[in-house]
Amino acid sequence: MADSSYVIEPIGVIHSELTSREAAPRQGYEGAPAAWLELDARFAPGLDGIAVGDTLIVLTWLHVARRDALQVHPRGDPERPLTGVFATRSPDRPNPIGVHRVTVVEIDGHRLKIAPMEAIDGTPVIDIKPTLARADVH
Amino acid sequence: MADSSYVIEPIGVIHSELTSREAAPRQGYEGAPAAWLELDARFAPGLDGIAVGDTLIVLTWLHVARRDALQVHPRGDPERPLTGVFATRSPDRPNPIGVHRVTVVEIDGHRLKIAPMEAIDGTPVIDIKPTLARADVH
Repeated sequence: MADSSYVIEPIGVIHSELTSREAAPRQGYEGAPAAWLELDARFAPGLDGIAVGDTLIVLTWLHVARRDALQVHPRGDPERPLTGVFATRSPDRPNPIGVHRVTVVEIDGHRLKIAPMEAIDGTPVIDIKPTLARADVH
Repeated sequence: MADSSYVIEPIGVIHSELTSREAAPRQGYEGAPAAWLELDARFAPGLDGIAVGDTLIVLTWLHVARRDALQVHPRGDPERPLTGVFATRSPDRPNPIGVHRVTVVEIDGHRLKIAPMEAIDGTPVIDIKPTLARADVH
């Protein structure tokens, strides 16, 4: 069924003080810092319309994740029973895409300072979307 | 900067009564129907822990989208000024990933009936995540 694959071209990268997965909070709201999202210059026209204070959904490619995991102990806690990765937010999953809700705190050309961002330094950014009040209230 | 690319392997596919982009609502909450998400059987263990009534974030690959668009008229309305794609939810964007908030209405083995789903029939599914009340209230 899944007989074709698709190639993702990163559109930018996260610059963060977080340099290891171990150092990163599991979720942004768990004390994650602000980070700079540096968009590749060729995609800069795609930012027109984004302003400081906007809330965005940033999608990242969690490049240090394991793609062969189908079940994990939630939050890495061996006391918690193995659970299907699709029922968890583990970065370890077949397509390790991170979904991050952030606020734009500063804009400098094609760089956006966003917070909170739990992804580590060097994490590729693959998409940016505005939030939709009616669709994204989960 | 974006010097490497990544390969996405679909984990499943959407089966829907919606057969064309023109027929599809622009957002799920705009009258989109229920659809079946058929997970590839080899990923079935990843569903353990998902139950009817759960709200999920389903990520899709919007396979009919244009990847060369950096600015669009929001909602396809030529009266609205060209806007950067990253400030819109247009499916046309460099990495055409759809983010869909759905509710699980039925589970049949490795098939999930979900609603609402505005993606058209045959749209590849690339990830499934639970919602996080604190992170996903956008």
